[in-house]
Amino acid sequence: MEKKTENNRGLLLVVSGPSGAGKGTLCGLLRKALPNLAYSVSVTTREPREGEVDGKDYFFKTVPEVKDMIFRGEFLEYAQVYGNYYGTPKPYVMSLLGEGRDVLLEIDIQGALQIKKVFPDAVLVFIIPPTLDELRARLYKRGKDTEEVIEKRLKESTRELRIAAKYDYIIINDDIEKACGHMLSLLDAERYRSQRMDFVIDRMLDNASGK
Amino acid sequence: MEKKTENNRGLLLVVSGPSGAGKGTLCGLLRKALPNLAYSVSVTTREPREGEVDGKDYFFKTVPEVKDMIFRGEFLEYAQVYGNYYGTPKPYVMSLLGEGRDVLLEIDIQGALQIKKVFPDAVLVFIIPPTLDELRARLYKRGKDTEEVIEKRLKESTRELRIAAKYDYIIINDDIEKACGHMLSLLDAERYRSQRMDFVIDRMLDNASGK
Repeated sequence: MEKKTENNRGLLLVVSGPSGAGKGTLCGLLRKALPNLAYSVSVTTREPREGEVDGKDYFFKTVPEVKDMIFRGEFLEYAQVYGNYYGTPKPYVMSLLGEGRDVLLEIDIQGALQIKKVFPDAVLVFIIPPTLDELRARLYKRGKDTEEVIEKRLKESTRELRIAAKYDYIIINDDIEKACGHMLSLLDAERYRSQRMDFVIDRMLDNASGK
Repeated sequence: MEKKTENNRGLLLVVSGPSGAGKGTLCGLLRKALPNLAYSVSVTTREPREGEVDGKDYFFKTVPEVKDMIFRGEFLEYAQVYGNYYGTPKPYVMSLLGEGRDVLLEIDIQGALQIKKVFPDAVLVFIIPPTLDELRARLYKRGKDTEEVIEKRLKESTRELRIAAKYDYIIINDDIEKACGHMLSLLDAERYRSQRMDFVIDRMLDNASGK
């Protein structure tokens, strides 16, 4: 008989954080450290931009296709933004998890909390900057937005920070290598949380009673 | 102003597991890896054995002293075993945690669940052997007990395994180095659980609103 002592379901890791917290860079570093970590590709109804590849950057769908998917309950979460639909396809994520692969999802707070509701096993990680002053400095430094947009983003971040308590973990992105180390720790630790080890216990007890 | 981005309360790590699961060896390895990890010293009313040092092996107390401590609510948990009291002194553990030190407590299931009730912030880890056959083999190999005692211990272990789900983590002690690695991961991860990061968020918001 095959000896299995490890949980072989994958983990769904959902990462959010305010704009400028550096979650993109952090997720990139995490994916480098864990080449087997799958990155969830979203569904969208918006037009592909130049160079975007269907099935890699997004799954590009028509509005009727997406409405059908919503009707059939095929999204872990979805939202309509500026008239376009964006969503996380449930069968796609579930099949990756079933193969034992961990899946990384970079998503906004609303989507993350939707996922936690329908899939409580998901692990939600909120990335925060060391201070709001640091966040302001980063947003100005990258020079992508006007002062007005930056101040609006900061207000939004303050609102989001109050919701962070609903996440499972809050990681301070002060030093990106350290932050990545904490992400690796929590991925390892989550595998041994008792609610994910029930089947190990059950099998031990089954084997014992079979004697 | 001092820049603090880390939670500086210590973690209370409570470790249990069936006899023969190897929790003693594992805790020893963990303490080597983390020299700053404090080991909680229990209070007992039993007589000191040769070589035992008060305050190091146990805090040796009289029965009236212990009864006073119980009356004043000074135990995180306590039990009476063969007429002697054993307990975990709350002020001692709390003062270590307050200094920012993580505290390790090796304790039985009843004690661990008592602690979780009065101190939900405690992190409970249950150590299990890879299989019950392996546990039986280990108990016979160490040759400390008679066959009757071993079979009684195994029955007790089966009962305990069903309670393991009440713990936060279940670690399989198949390879001691790996098991110790998982303990280090979970200690790191637990520090960033959102319920322990509330004060970081509060401070960020306070600083922001103070502007």
